[in-house]
Amino acid sequence: MDFKRYFPIFQWLPLYGRETLISDLLAAVIVTIMLIPQSLAYAMLAGLPPEVGLYASIAPLFLYAIFGTSRTLAVGPVAVIALMTAAAAGNLAIQGSPEYVTLVIVLTFMSGLMLTIMGLVKLGFLANFLSHPVISGFITASGLIIAASQARHLLGLDAEGVNFISVMYGLLSRLNEVHLITLAIGLGTLVFLYANRFWGRHLLTSVGFNPHTADMMSKAAPVLAVALTTFVTWHWQLDQQGVRVVGTIPTGLPPLSLPPLIPQLWTDLFLAAVLISIVGFVESVSVGQTLAAKRRQRIDPNQELIGLGAANLGSAFSSGMPVSGGFSRSIVNFDAGAATPAAGAYSAIGILIATLFLTPLIAYLPVATLAATIIVAVLSLIDLKAVHETFVYSKSDFAAMLATILITLTQGVELGIMVGVGLSLLLYLYRTSRPHYAVIGRLPNTEHFRNVERYDVEVDDRIALLRIDESLYFANSRYLEDVVMDIVINQPKLNHLVLTCQAVNLIDSSALDSLRTINKRLKDSGVQMHLAEVKGPVMDRLKKTDFLDEMSGVVYMSTYDAWKVLHERAEESESEKNSTDKSA
Amino acid sequence: MDFKRYFPIFQWLPLYGRETLISDLLAAVIVTIMLIPQSLAYAMLAGLPPEVGLYASIAPLFLYAIFGTSRTLAVGPVAVIALMTAAAAGNLAIQGSPEYVTLVIVLTFMSGLMLTIMGLVKLGFLANFLSHPVISGFITASGLIIAASQARHLLGLDAEGVNFISVMYGLLSRLNEVHLITLAIGLGTLVFLYANRFWGRHLLTSVGFNPHTADMMSKAAPVLAVALTTFVTWHWQLDQQGVRVVGTIPTGLPPLSLPPLIPQLWTDLFLAAVLISIVGFVESVSVGQTLAAKRRQRIDPNQELIGLGAANLGSAFSSGMPVSGGFSRSIVNFDAGAATPAAGAYSAIGILIATLFLTPLIAYLPVATLAATIIVAVLSLIDLKAVHETFVYSKSDFAAMLATILITLTQGVELGIMVGVGLSLLLYLYRTSRPHYAVIGRLPNTEHFRNVERYDVEVDDRIALLRIDESLYFANSRYLEDVVMDIVINQPKLNHLVLTCQAVNLIDSSALDSLRTINKRLKDSGVQMHLAEVKGPVMDRLKKTDFLDEMSGVVYMSTYDAWKVLHERAEESESEKNSTDKSA
Repeated sequence: MDFKRYFPIFQWLPLYGRETLISDLLAAVIVTIMLIPQSLAYAMLAGLPPEVGLYASIAPLFLYAIFGTSRTLAVGPVAVIALMTAAAAGNLAIQGSPEYVTLVIVLTFMSGLMLTIMGLVKLGFLANFLSHPVISGFITASGLIIAASQARHLLGLDAEGVNFISVMYGLLSRLNEVHLITLAIGLGTLVFLYANRFWGRHLLTSVGFNPHTADMMSKAAPVLAVALTTFVTWHWQLDQQGVRVVGTIPTGLPPLSLPPLIPQLWTDLFLAAVLISIVGFVESVSVGQTLAAKRRQRIDPNQELIGLGAANLGSAFSSGMPVSGGFSRSIVNFDAGAATPAAGAYSAIGILIATLFLTPLIAYLPVATLAATIIVAVLSLIDLKAVHETFVYSKSDFAAMLATILITLTQGVELGIMVGVGLSLLLYLYRTSRPHYAVIGRLPNTEHFRNVERYDVEVDDRIALLRIDESLYFANSRYLEDVVMDIVINQPKLNHLVLTCQAVNLIDSSALDSLRTINKRLKDSGVQMHLAEVKGPVMDRLKKTDFLDEMSGVVYMSTYDAWKVLHERAEESESEKNSTDKSA
Repeated sequence: MDFKRYFPIFQWLPLYGRETLISDLLAAVIVTIMLIPQSLAYAMLAGLPPEVGLYASIAPLFLYAIFGTSRTLAVGPVAVIALMTAAAAGNLAIQGSPEYVTLVIVLTFMSGLMLTIMGLVKLGFLANFLSHPVISGFITASGLIIAASQARHLLGLDAEGVNFISVMYGLLSRLNEVHLITLAIGLGTLVFLYANRFWGRHLLTSVGFNPHTADMMSKAAPVLAVALTTFVTWHWQLDQQGVRVVGTIPTGLPPLSLPPLIPQLWTDLFLAAVLISIVGFVESVSVGQTLAAKRRQRIDPNQELIGLGAANLGSAFSSGMPVSGGFSRSIVNFDAGAATPAAGAYSAIGILIATLFLTPLIAYLPVATLAATIIVAVLSLIDLKAVHETFVYSKSDFAAMLATILITLTQGVELGIMVGVGLSLLLYLYRTSRPHYAVIGRLPNTEHFRNVERYDVEVDDRIALLRIDESLYFANSRYLEDVVMDIVINQPKLNHLVLTCQAVNLIDSSALDSLRTINKRLKDSGVQMHLAEVKGPVMDRLKKTDFLDEMSGVVYMSTYDAWKVLHERAEESESEKNSTDKSA
């Protein structure tokens, strides 16, 4: 049972049949065609030789097929992770240098290790650190940075820059140096891809293809653009006239690589590896869950960590780069009818064949074509609608989102995502540092109690009934101490305070300490503390301690019981009480 | 109004009268007597010249009197903070060297700045990061480390060590070198102080003092020990025979000091300053709140941050060390009748006089006496009862506590507190990553709905009613997606899902996204999503978005409404539904 949990492949492999094989193979062909230009482009985006993108699309896909739980997630290089990789490795070495490639392998290995360990110790819930506004803001800003960074390839310029602002400035100040043939190829591809995105399917159906086939064909448009521009460049030898091309790509199996054991490198890349792991995991899981839900299937987030971890470890040992579940590719895989992770393995075989035999054909592939592919892909990441909706819906969430966007654009991806996470956490802690509570009073002539601020209820200034609407633990229990002392100070005649606990599912050690503190302080102020409606499991735990003996008051079954006893007692001893008030 | 909030001194100074003056002066005399040996001892513990402790007990006390909100908190050097200071500065310079003193001044300044800023932007709630088991474990472990580190002064050994284990080993392996006269003085002081703690008050009352006077006299016992051992050492010139003494302390006002602006220093000390600030604040606020409650007074945690911040800034500019609110001293101040923070200012004057005139008298004070004072003080910090209670009460809290203790003892205070904070946060996120919820059914023939697992209720396998018992935000909303999909998968006939939201006070942007996702996934699975009992403010927010139009179902006023409509509709269209199930 547990074995199958850690090796999900054994859940579907025994049932594998002919029909599934055909669906998976068909999906694999389409994904492979889409993956070839994407993997070359994202390797370029990460500042790596193009073949690294292909290498990262072989072993990781096999490993994910064994360890992953999503039936349709297509792993491989993705845009945002490629950008983060470039940012991390670019701090420590020059893009494209051998040291740079080594750094990326260490980064991939660390990320794989972290994901695997997080999966084994079941830390999938850590993805909750990232709120939606932060991740959405981060991805939008990353999309802008990627688009800006690729614009130079489209324009044939060499402008460099450390962030969005300086890249844009560099481009604009050198517009007079634009290389026109490169621009023609790049812009042509861009227009073609956009036209295809909006009208391609419609055009293909109108000339007689059935809608599904038309859809799949239109998804293969980037390959057509690659083939066409490569042919044009080769035929007219445009590379001699200054059009930058991919160049010779080594043919053969991915070379084995070993991450070097240099402690300094590991320390330097640690933070980047953490961020890449978390962002990759969050993106991957959202895609995986959305697709699984469409077929009423489930994915297991902790096992997904192991699947992604294994994929990255595989990538690190086969000269690849960090991988994650890609959004567009996974949807294509799903739509094309992939039924099991085997489709991913077949795609890997497709890429392997391409690596072995097709690389000579793409030596003349213009870099501008790849840049256009990237720009079209990432512009769909920019979600201004989400920015607007968040603004309308919640100002504090919007603030977190805006800070993430601005800092990502101006200070880079690492600081951007960290500030985002920090802000999410701060907002969260702030929101949860105060338990919901209400001072309640009795609805006249009933056994019901309601918030004194909303209802016209019966109260007694010698008794305070405080209803706690949440579990108590260290993050919110200190605030309860404040609430109680506020009541004591504002209600000088107070003699009894009842905490009504029907919504309290847990009292942790810190909250228990707070209750002790409240009890002591109330005693010092001459007020007895009582509990009411304590749930069974909470009561069982309290009984293990001496708190109930220590508490100045008693535990009542219901709020009404507490009210009846204390109110009647107070009425009876009214005169006596007044005389003892001072000494209490 | 706001002015008085930031300068609490104006809340009490205008009302200051003769009676208050007398109470404050009396308390100040007693606290001063107690503070002199303590401040020397804690400076020694921090690896600083003894006068630094005195300097840190002048300006900070004046400043806290102006900015602090606790009427009775006695600020100054404290044991745990002194230990943390020694750990931080000891990493970068040799104890007692001029660089070391400079490092401590930078640390004090940074901590003061951080506390002040946290107070101004109202980050007092950040103290919630530290759960009680973690802080209690940390203080217990610190107490053990301090006691072990002082044992060498008691034994007259020079043993050094980087952590508790190595210090203990160093001491035990050199027991044959113990300096016997030093041991006699140290052990004598220790026995005297312990005897005083247990029997002193009783003895003094039995010879005729009234209990209150006896109590105060017994609190002054350390001063007696200091005077006696200093006299003995001076009279028999024991320093010539190897008894280490405090030596010549410069007389005069605390010299002005400026933290040097060396960025590298600031970076190196940043983390330590954060930890010292938070630990100091948490300790200080707990003491302050406990004492304030005894007189039905309040302290304002955010203003306390400013008060402590000002005190530390003052300490940094007057050659002092990091300060915080001390536990034992504050209780003495309170018991002695201090009525306003002016008592602290009078203590500062007392220490100032001591610094100006009394320092020559303590040149012959044996270091062993101070060590004994520290040991007696810190052993009360070691709270094995709390360890046991936490073990009995909650295994997960105990695990966090034990990890904090073990890592503090073996790896040092900084890593100890950080691991503790990390574990607290992890535990917290884990606990809150799953919102409480219940699948509910109808109590037959009523309009009430209850948990299907606990009650014998009416259900319909085409309808699922899910009651959400908590506010939804990014930390727990993803789990809700899982819960819903679990229901969908396990209930194949399902057509309608109703989320009952009477306990939902907030839906943040992330949770809204989750609701959208749930709606889409349900639609893909052929299930309609409905809401019921949505609170007014939550509904107002949802109306600002297009979610309600997007949602496949409708919003019902009550769970009963939803049940009635959907159940009846399902019954009516039973035959029809079966035929359309597949296409849905």
